[in-house]
Amino acid sequence: MNATSSVETLYWAEDALFLIDQRRLPHELQYVRCVTVAEVRNAIESMVVRGAPAIGIAAAYGVVLAVEAAYKRDPQNWANVVRTDLAELKSARPTAVNLAWAIEEMASHFEHVDNPPHQALLAQAHTMREQDIDANKVMGELGAQFIAENSTVVTHCNAGALATAGYGTALGVIRSARQHKNLRRVFAGETRPWFQGARLTAWELQRDNIPVTLIADSAMGHLMSSRTIDCVITGADRVAANGDVANKIGTYSLAVCARAHGVRFMVVAPTSTIDMGTAHGSQIPIEERAGDELLVYQGSRISPADLDAYNPVFDITPAEYVDVLVTERGVVEKPNLDTIEGLFSRKI
Amino acid sequence: MNATSSVETLYWAEDALFLIDQRRLPHELQYVRCVTVAEVRNAIESMVVRGAPAIGIAAAYGVVLAVEAAYKRDPQNWANVVRTDLAELKSARPTAVNLAWAIEEMASHFEHVDNPPHQALLAQAHTMREQDIDANKVMGELGAQFIAENSTVVTHCNAGALATAGYGTALGVIRSARQHKNLRRVFAGETRPWFQGARLTAWELQRDNIPVTLIADSAMGHLMSSRTIDCVITGADRVAANGDVANKIGTYSLAVCARAHGVRFMVVAPTSTIDMGTAHGSQIPIEERAGDELLVYQGSRISPADLDAYNPVFDITPAEYVDVLVTERGVVEKPNLDTIEGLFSRKI
Repeated sequence: MNATSSVETLYWAEDALFLIDQRRLPHELQYVRCVTVAEVRNAIESMVVRGAPAIGIAAAYGVVLAVEAAYKRDPQNWANVVRTDLAELKSARPTAVNLAWAIEEMASHFEHVDNPPHQALLAQAHTMREQDIDANKVMGELGAQFIAENSTVVTHCNAGALATAGYGTALGVIRSARQHKNLRRVFAGETRPWFQGARLTAWELQRDNIPVTLIADSAMGHLMSSRTIDCVITGADRVAANGDVANKIGTYSLAVCARAHGVRFMVVAPTSTIDMGTAHGSQIPIEERAGDELLVYQGSRISPADLDAYNPVFDITPAEYVDVLVTERGVVEKPNLDTIEGLFSRKI
Repeated sequence: MNATSSVETLYWAEDALFLIDQRRLPHELQYVRCVTVAEVRNAIESMVVRGAPAIGIAAAYGVVLAVEAAYKRDPQNWANVVRTDLAELKSARPTAVNLAWAIEEMASHFEHVDNPPHQALLAQAHTMREQDIDANKVMGELGAQFIAENSTVVTHCNAGALATAGYGTALGVIRSARQHKNLRRVFAGETRPWFQGARLTAWELQRDNIPVTLIADSAMGHLMSSRTIDCVITGADRVAANGDVANKIGTYSLAVCARAHGVRFMVVAPTSTIDMGTAHGSQIPIEERAGDELLVYQGSRISPADLDAYNPVFDITPAEYVDVLVTERGVVEKPNLDTIEGLFSRKI
């Protein structure tokens, strides 16, 4: 058992959802306890928990809490009463589709559960959590096949254990490649403005004794032009039906630089991140967060007062830049609508 | 007179060189007083003053201080005595060629000055300072011809009044374009790790009432794919004879993204930044600074302890990515060895 898997990104205990407070990492390892769906929504919105799959699983437990409260208020009609809560929960963040996916997945069980519904839905949330971890391990192995001996790879943001129920998507591939002794070093972009790379990816990889070097996001082009980089590996917040990828701001610039240097660009995401209802990346809503994320660091102002700032926190990488899309249902090279539709018809 | 030109980046008074302490901007406007060449060297190394042309002019005054002290020690042989100081001064930072250029320019006058040499060399330093400002204003007009009505431009780092003796190179073009009422808005990359964009460019442009919006460096690709950007405008720390450009880390990624979006990429630099002795960008030494510039912000640690960091603070943009090179001797489109050599044979 490796060190990271001994830390739970989120877990259920004593009728509550516990979430690592990712705002405090790497300095403090604290959990936030949520006993209402409003608390779960707030935790997602304020980035106590972040990362598309982790948000999805947190939301699944949020549905359990919402249903429990709705059942207490109206045991006959809880499935309708709860709809407002679910809509609110779904609106916590707009870009990652796993949030909506997890809520809809939970809701699809409402008509099949006996009253009181709480235990059956909790079991379903547990199943989704386990499936997410299992999917990550499958993706880790599938993606690691593309990582040759002695490889140096780049990652961006945190698509690790902390972004999922465990093991990670991009960092899952990195973990698996390391187990196969093929991974020499990871260069991690610090990921402004929230420093997911500097705070979370660095922390995770250090705990697993995987060699990691931090670099400025803007240094990625220089890195590729001055050293041999074998692969860029990122997660995704939403993959459109045509293969366009929404992911953390900076992913697109990184993909453009990778293409200019002939570096393979790999996206690792479970099929719960693929949104067949979104035809193209241009239809994916890009969340903009407060400019103060750029202008202020831990209460200390970096820039002049009253400075205008534009803080889109995701971007769209067109499918043509994606060399490899790794899902738990299999790998697609050069994804497009046909090959992505094909994933969903594969037997697994 | 605009607001910024009322602030002197550096000036000489009472036998001392005064430098704005750029480490403290935008929060405090303080000057560091240098009365020895060692103090000037330290100010350059510790980034009290930064920006290739500003470093050059500061060094010119540093030579004056060095010569004054050498003459006191050895009035007959000061021009030899001072060589050690000049070598030390030249080694303060490796990438910007203006440092070496300014020292050599000052030294070329040593054999022509009467003793005591101090006043004549001070006059020469003043001339170089004035010439730098004049060159920036010429470049501003030349570059502004490429900025059509209602343009939105991107800049990176600070190539402004603070990076020069005044007016700026990239920001000089932006100031001139604004005077011609052709500039709508500037998007300024924050410029990790030192935040030259967030701290210095934002401060300068706000003082001149030029609309400026700060964005994360990694958001440049997204910006170009989601809005119409008319031009990227940067300065340079050294231009090789073939037109390759060394500039602040992130410039190269920006140039790659600009090319992918058909956005014009303009470099603005006086001929003192062109190093005909360096054939290609690969021969330009790239300064690496302490990893703590990435890992720590104002004494507050961002990342886990003992994290490895790679902090190259410049990168090389190959000439093929440069659409327009603006110098005070004229404009070169698609620069190469021939056209750059041609610049130096032009009558001015």
